[in-house]
Amino acid sequence: MAKAWHLMRRPQGMPVMEDFALKDIELAPLEEGMVRVANRWLSVDPYMRGRMNDVKSYVPPFALDAPMSGGAVGEVLESRDPGLSVGDMVLHMSGWRDETVEPAANFNKLPAIPGVEPQAFLGNLGLTGGTAYFGLLEAASAKERDIVFVSAAAGAVGSAVVQIAKAKGMTVIGSAGGADKCEFVRSLGADEVVDYKAGPVLNQLAAAAPKGIDVYFDNVGGDHLDAALALARQNARFAICGMIEGYNAGEPTQLRYIMRIIAMRIRLQGFIYTDYMDKMGEFYRDMGGWIASGQVKGRDTVIEGLERTPEAFLGLFTGANTGKMLVRL
Amino acid sequence: MAKAWHLMRRPQGMPVMEDFALKDIELAPLEEGMVRVANRWLSVDPYMRGRMNDVKSYVPPFALDAPMSGGAVGEVLESRDPGLSVGDMVLHMSGWRDETVEPAANFNKLPAIPGVEPQAFLGNLGLTGGTAYFGLLEAASAKERDIVFVSAAAGAVGSAVVQIAKAKGMTVIGSAGGADKCEFVRSLGADEVVDYKAGPVLNQLAAAAPKGIDVYFDNVGGDHLDAALALARQNARFAICGMIEGYNAGEPTQLRYIMRIIAMRIRLQGFIYTDYMDKMGEFYRDMGGWIASGQVKGRDTVIEGLERTPEAFLGLFTGANTGKMLVRL
Repeated sequence: MAKAWHLMRRPQGMPVMEDFALKDIELAPLEEGMVRVANRWLSVDPYMRGRMNDVKSYVPPFALDAPMSGGAVGEVLESRDPGLSVGDMVLHMSGWRDETVEPAANFNKLPAIPGVEPQAFLGNLGLTGGTAYFGLLEAASAKERDIVFVSAAAGAVGSAVVQIAKAKGMTVIGSAGGADKCEFVRSLGADEVVDYKAGPVLNQLAAAAPKGIDVYFDNVGGDHLDAALALARQNARFAICGMIEGYNAGEPTQLRYIMRIIAMRIRLQGFIYTDYMDKMGEFYRDMGGWIASGQVKGRDTVIEGLERTPEAFLGLFTGANTGKMLVRL
Repeated sequence: MAKAWHLMRRPQGMPVMEDFALKDIELAPLEEGMVRVANRWLSVDPYMRGRMNDVKSYVPPFALDAPMSGGAVGEVLESRDPGLSVGDMVLHMSGWRDETVEPAANFNKLPAIPGVEPQAFLGNLGLTGGTAYFGLLEAASAKERDIVFVSAAAGAVGSAVVQIAKAKGMTVIGSAGGADKCEFVRSLGADEVVDYKAGPVLNQLAAAAPKGIDVYFDNVGGDHLDAALALARQNARFAICGMIEGYNAGEPTQLRYIMRIIAMRIRLQGFIYTDYMDKMGEFYRDMGGWIASGQVKGRDTVIEGLERTPEAFLGLFTGANTGKMLVRL
């Protein structure tokens, strides 16, 4: 019997374990054209918090008391489709469970690339890396010699932003919480780091970026966004990717420096990975090259076992991960 | 003896009359190439509040205990330059005073256009109209059939935005304070109005724009900006022109809906009139045509007398003006 995590109720503020239940599920029969896949890697991502609310957004909300979904890498166990064979590794959206049976069209067969592990397609070659790449280079129009500030720089997206920015010849300031994570951000090539647990972001960013910033890649919102507004140079561009501080909060965001948008002609641009599907070719070419050359390295925080998936997800909001948070089955 | 308003101290919060003093000034000698001009019309504009702080911005701060400056239309009284003659009307930046002697290059001779009064160059053919035109069409990339929300729509810039948007075939919702101003906004062609004094902006905007908004022209900030974020449709564009609510406040802006920037891919773009100097030709062509055809009408609130200039300025923050606030000498 397969098992899948179900959302049992809509979280109020920070989700708790009792919002989730692991339940047996019936798999579809393996008819002609269908494939049975065992998940090996599950992705948990901050955007999933939004799907737990009953609010129309860019992805539909999770239904209550039904199997949840999300990015996953699995292995084909049985196939009744000529395009997929037993042992193939596939990328698909039926995460939060151990097994699934679906039409072959729901699965993307992963290419075998020397030195690239299949779970990279949940990270730097997938949603995470693509979000970093398109956000930095498209939404924020970042270019060589820009001074770039990245929040949550030890996280999955942030650590990719740091490395892409360095590969493109930018100056990078990354924020992270605690000495270990700051050290990790430095090891990725960041020129300066801001430890948001050590003191106010604004003071530290002012010291780290005495000339101000041209680009801000926002994963956090709140005080980080306000500090970036305070220190933005003329024609600064902000890619607004996430506001993890606000995902669980009922409180409004307080901005003291939002008026600088006018004098500094700041541009804020919200974006989502899928806005740039027409540029996936460039992404695979650039990111593939950087991974091959070692200019972009992945780092995963791995939680073992399907039953710990909610714990992995909750860890995203408490800083439990360095780099990409994954569940291994 | 000429007189000029001096800023005597930096206002804390809302400026008060005691921050200003009208003092005698020495005029420069009328040497070769110099021109003596008597001001007929002075402009007071919200952006001047920023110049009263000792903060580097897009215009330098006013010096303390020195003559203030600002847009003005004057008449040439004496000229030692061949380019200007007695009786010419000129546009220049030595407002907040009755008379000035300066090099001829500081003055722009106004063309005599039938039906256009010289003070229009302080309004719809000047800073005000240009701010509306470039903000709407460039910063917000507004286009035919967009649903446009404009705050402070009875003000100088806002009333121009309403009329330009209608001339370009957009649907327009304007906010203003009180029934009289709302009626004025309707008379400009707005499809719907929001009276921000009659109740929360968000509820009224939701009723006025059941399909949401594509463009927001922000003169106000605060609750108006938050309501626009709440109701923005996908790929909405906000031109951030002013945040008059915050100019005198020490309090941070509170935004409950800023996270919608991501899901809706909203763009916020701060801008200033002078960013688009290379497109002044288009502006004069379009705006001149609309004024000639009656599609864009000016409305002035006129305060009489140099000694009342600070009162006119302070009135900008208490809603004393409908349309452009001017001082006539």
